Amino acid sequence: MALTFAVLGNGAWGTAIAVHLSQRPDYRVKLWGALPETVEEMRRLRENVPLLPGVRIPESVVLTSDPAEAVEGADCWMSAIPTAFLRASLQRFAGLASQVPIVSLSKGLENGTFYRPTEVIREVLGVQRLAVLSGPSHAEEVGRGLPAAVVAASEELELALWVQRHIGTERFRVYTNSDVVGVELCGALKNVMAIAAGLCDGLQFGDNAKAALVTRGLAEMTRFGVAHGADSHTFHGLAGLGDLIVTCYSEHSRNRRVGFRLGRGEPREAVLAGPQVAEGVWTSRSVYERVQRIGLETPIMTGVYRIVHEGQSPLDAVRDLLRRQPGNERW
Amino acid sequence: MALTFAVLGNGAWGTAIAVHLSQRPDYRVKLWGALPETVEEMRRLRENVPLLPGVRIPESVVLTSDPAEAVEGADCWMSAIPTAFLRASLQRFAGLASQVPIVSLSKGLENGTFYRPTEVIREVLGVQRLAVLSGPSHAEEVGRGLPAAVVAASEELELALWVQRHIGTERFRVYTNSDVVGVELCGALKNVMAIAAGLCDGLQFGDNAKAALVTRGLAEMTRFGVAHGADSHTFHGLAGLGDLIVTCYSEHSRNRRVGFRLGRGEPREAVLAGPQVAEGVWTSRSVYERVQRIGLETPIMTGVYRIVHEGQSPLDAVRDLLRRQPGNERW
Repeated sequence: MALTFAVLGNGAWGTAIAVHLSQRPDYRVKLWGALPETVEEMRRLRENVPLLPGVRIPESVVLTSDPAEAVEGADCWMSAIPTAFLRASLQRFAGLASQVPIVSLSKGLENGTFYRPTEVIREVLGVQRLAVLSGPSHAEEVGRGLPAAVVAASEELELALWVQRHIGTERFRVYTNSDVVGVELCGALKNVMAIAAGLCDGLQFGDNAKAALVTRGLAEMTRFGVAHGADSHTFHGLAGLGDLIVTCYSEHSRNRRVGFRLGRGEPREAVLAGPQVAEGVWTSRSVYERVQRIGLETPIMTGVYRIVHEGQSPLDAVRDLLRRQPGNERW
Repeated sequence: MALTFAVLGNGAWGTAIAVHLSQRPDYRVKLWGALPETVEEMRRLRENVPLLPGVRIPESVVLTSDPAEAVEGADCWMSAIPTAFLRASLQRFAGLASQVPIVSLSKGLENGTFYRPTEVIREVLGVQRLAVLSGPSHAEEVGRGLPAAVVAASEELELALWVQRHIGTERFRVYTNSDVVGVELCGALKNVMAIAAGLCDGLQFGDNAKAALVTRGLAEMTRFGVAHGADSHTFHGLAGLGDLIVTCYSEHSRNRRVGFRLGRGEPREAVLAGPQVAEGVWTSRSVYERVQRIGLETPIMTGVYRIVHEGQSPLDAVRDLLRRQPGNERW
């Protein structure tokens, strides 16, 4: 079936998905980037050198920085814009949105509003047909065609099935799910847990402690999600557990790295400086503000907040955690 | 509170638990081993050199190979005997059992009978007060006093709370649970999944595939467990998810190693030879026989069975897995 996809966002993940889609000879794929110079370089080199080196972008992928050209004739938009730039970038597409489905690939929560990516998309574009694609999916590996399994979630079952059928392959397995809220919260909260996992590694607490942290962390994420209308099953699936594991155990996770450096004793100012602050740093603040308001116990995420934003020493935060009386494991 | 513990089994885990308990000055700890020469050497060196090197066994720990001496005056028995030797070893304690609680630390299922460790204990000793202690707990780390969190499960809530209170510390955190069946099945099934995770590593399928495998593997373990009367929550807890992660991601797991070598292409005969066959090899057969009888879908564990016992090539087994149509992720 001939289909045209507009991939918005030429970061690592957007590039990888464009390359993945371009494997199907009947698909037309257009990849949009905000910065003309970057797009031009990718067009010239057929490679995203800074963010996805070594993965060839086929000639068939149309590279453009023109929003109208990107979405013209598209049967589906794939939004792979980082959450921090999502609203501003989408505003350039505001007049162009039609009734074609939009699949969101962004992970995180909008600063200030606490909006999930699909909420931002809906607010800016006013569209209705939305799905989310999430799960353990390092761009480097998907770009190389290694196997992966992800979840397509939509309130509209038909759309989730459409994504499964048209974006999934044997090697890029797409499971369906109807819990958009849960899938998006998983994608945001796992970044906070990755900071905690990095702290555990930096403090050299060992494999047992880290596995326990991830397990209790997932229970905490689930509790937070359920309090926001998510389905607990989602947290045990690919978007939850799967993505959490890959983020907490990967050497490449930027969030894990923040925790690791703090755990090793590097000063907070040095770790948090830099052109791009890891997503989990902001999410930990949003979560902290939320749980203060709704009165939920999230000891691990609160510990991360205190270390990252209030300067508590990692060892003191761990001590606070260990002092808590363990109860029945169900809660 | 002065208490006397009899730890049965001087392997890595039995030794580590004895060392852990001996940190409390009011506890008397006796550690029993089946082989007098081994016990004698440990007594002389105050170290379990082959299995837990570098961890000093305090003078206060009484080392013995005499069953009667081991359990005399004990307030609690801790059974840390490997499942394969459990029945034969316990028979030496048959006349000695009283009404003191027994905490089982063994993981696995008895060959042939498919009995869980507590079922073997109950059958051989005829005792009633049983608990299970399980979770992510590499002996090397517990022996060194690194933090860990585990689960104490008993049908008798009082006993689980007793274990939490008397065996748990700030650094060795004990959560309670009432699902003995689930906790024991987790401890057995995770070894089969560790073989699968090793295969994934050996085939160099990458982090995404491995995280997806672990996630789908946990769903499969849960399905199997629920069909045998376990509570699904247990599988998302420390004995389930926690132990699964540590086993699948540790360099030291013997089961993971079996899968890794097979995935690398080493001949099955070479990988499965050796003095001690990894537990998951046997468990995969028991599980396969079960699911044939009860008609449950366990594609990953069946794949492991086919590779390990029927000589299917790992790549073919993976191809079978990838050919399955992904559905809704809940099942």
